[in-house]
Amino acid sequence: MEAADTPRLRLDRARLEANAARLRARAAALGVAFRPHFKTAKSVEVARLSHGGAPGPATVSTMKEAEALAASEAAADILLAATAIPARLPRAEALARAHGTRLLLVVDSPEMARQLDEAATAAHEVLVEVDCGEHRAGVPPEGALAVARAIHGARRLRLAGVMTHGGHSYATDDPARLAAVAEEERAAAVAAAEAIRGAGMPAPVVSVGSTPTLLHARHLEGVTEVRAGVSLFWDLAQMSRGLCGWEELALSVVSTVIGHNRAAGALILDAGALALSKDVTANAFAPETAYGRLADAETGAALPLHVTIVHQEHGTVPVPDPSWFGRLPVGSRVRVYPNHACLTAAGGYGAYDVVDGAGRPAGRWARVDGWH
Amino acid sequence: MEAADTPRLRLDRARLEANAARLRARAAALGVAFRPHFKTAKSVEVARLSHGGAPGPATVSTMKEAEALAASEAAADILLAATAIPARLPRAEALARAHGTRLLLVVDSPEMARQLDEAATAAHEVLVEVDCGEHRAGVPPEGALAVARAIHGARRLRLAGVMTHGGHSYATDDPARLAAVAEEERAAAVAAAEAIRGAGMPAPVVSVGSTPTLLHARHLEGVTEVRAGVSLFWDLAQMSRGLCGWEELALSVVSTVIGHNRAAGALILDAGALALSKDVTANAFAPETAYGRLADAETGAALPLHVTIVHQEHGTVPVPDPSWFGRLPVGSRVRVYPNHACLTAAGGYGAYDVVDGAGRPAGRWARVDGWH
Repeated sequence: MEAADTPRLRLDRARLEANAARLRARAAALGVAFRPHFKTAKSVEVARLSHGGAPGPATVSTMKEAEALAASEAAADILLAATAIPARLPRAEALARAHGTRLLLVVDSPEMARQLDEAATAAHEVLVEVDCGEHRAGVPPEGALAVARAIHGARRLRLAGVMTHGGHSYATDDPARLAAVAEEERAAAVAAAEAIRGAGMPAPVVSVGSTPTLLHARHLEGVTEVRAGVSLFWDLAQMSRGLCGWEELALSVVSTVIGHNRAAGALILDAGALALSKDVTANAFAPETAYGRLADAETGAALPLHVTIVHQEHGTVPVPDPSWFGRLPVGSRVRVYPNHACLTAAGGYGAYDVVDGAGRPAGRWARVDGWH
Repeated sequence: MEAADTPRLRLDRARLEANAARLRARAAALGVAFRPHFKTAKSVEVARLSHGGAPGPATVSTMKEAEALAASEAAADILLAATAIPARLPRAEALARAHGTRLLLVVDSPEMARQLDEAATAAHEVLVEVDCGEHRAGVPPEGALAVARAIHGARRLRLAGVMTHGGHSYATDDPARLAAVAEEERAAAVAAAEAIRGAGMPAPVVSVGSTPTLLHARHLEGVTEVRAGVSLFWDLAQMSRGLCGWEELALSVVSTVIGHNRAAGALILDAGALALSKDVTANAFAPETAYGRLADAETGAALPLHVTIVHQEHGTVPVPDPSWFGRLPVGSRVRVYPNHACLTAAGGYGAYDVVDGAGRPAGRWARVDGWH
């Protein structure tokens, strides 16, 4: 791997396994099923490993992820967490035919439920997405009943329950506030499910989750399952919110020092905007993060260096003094720990270089990027 | 295409052809060769079309792009504009063996020249990258001679000249300043080439370019070729700098309205951070751009709506009044014109949906994303 071209994604399997075990234990302690989200990993190997090596329930954000998990038999029970649209139904129906996959769809409006029903040529299980405070997708809890009725009254749709995502948990790093958001998430989902059941309709699934709320929920009474995904890998955005430590970060970008800009006092890396993304989510709580933090290529020890400017294929790393030009000569390698793992990993790497706990090569795992 | 899943990249072939013709005419008027950059398009069909349907010189940012252009015979003379590293040489040598491709490499330090020479098992043409004011990669003009000597004195490397990129042209929208940056770019490259020739070494190639400087250069005496790439597609970042008009934008993202968040006064699209990227380059000069501007799906007419928040697969579009919920119902489609075409197109689409001048489907062109 030393001679391989850069930039590359490096995935530490031992850390990944430890992170997954922590999430499973947390869900078990809360008495709910764990349905990991693969929008970050986009990998069938990570899906298997997240459940300790066996198939298990999964969350995805694209049909392409669902197809890969189903075809590999890494998951037969999949929740597509992005709002379903009619154009996706032929693929959903092919999945059920080919693999017997259970694919839970999500809608947040009676209109979309009706459009799905008109387009469907087979039965589909559908969840009502509830907005618990993030104000992105989802219907306010008081509107859930109308969406449920549209699903329940449809010919081809089967009302399967409710889901919500407490994404506003990322607006804070205060554990007490995180616990409060977790309770908002739980309460909104459970209230919607109870209203639906009170109206004589079924709601067997009550699905919640975000990494911060899973870790900070005081209890999850009434919830049946939790979702979380970036916590399999962690990143500096999560670390900046106190959710993980440096030694738990499983994903980094291996990059080559391609130049020394001595006039500007900076190293130039071959990891730029495509390799790292332009995401700066960590910076709300850790502004020094910029586009990512450097680490020693061999040991992973943190260096006091950050990628502060990105162009498409170039990353600029200011150095505090010129001794760094000797410590990191032209042609040497570094690891860059990403600001936001989800967007970084989607940069077009195609695959992970997996290493074992001692940093030895342990395979290459394909990623399932894109939509089509 | 109407029933196809979204998000998708839509490429207007007629606009692309007109943009390419404008660039060719501009280079011809300046008396230099045109070596279009494919870091934006990453497409062999766009490469062919950029030269009016025939093969021609090309610039790329990755070995993967070079391999695709060479294998398709879209280009046999390719400049790899990102600093070369030894790990890339086996691929470069395979390319020359398989296709006879001329691949111009770029370095900006004697150290990297020496490392390339040690790793090389065949001859490589190499350019000195000069920093003309962007302060990213490149050696200051006064350091060019030392880099040239390291290349010229190497066993396997052949000194082919100099290249520079006036990327600081993007810091202004003032035509006079753009002309001044173009002159900085030209002068730095020509001075470096003349210093090299004055020392008895060859410098046949003097390569400059950025879209703004190509369009604003007053003359290019001493230059042999220009590079420019995003100008084949254009985007809102370029439009915000006065470089193109709305009717020239060749690339857009077709997205579905997946929800109405009436409480928040916003449409929700299935084009989010992956589909649009988190690039906000346009916002320096057009802050209202946010992550992209909406247009009518059929006509492409601009709408007074922008994607202001992106999550991984969700884009939030505030609407000025509720009548927009009727004009753009759940399930309808929009076009989103991207803030920055290069990063948006690299989001993992895999291919372009090409349309003709009347908006009719005219094929699907694969993209060459990623590095490996």
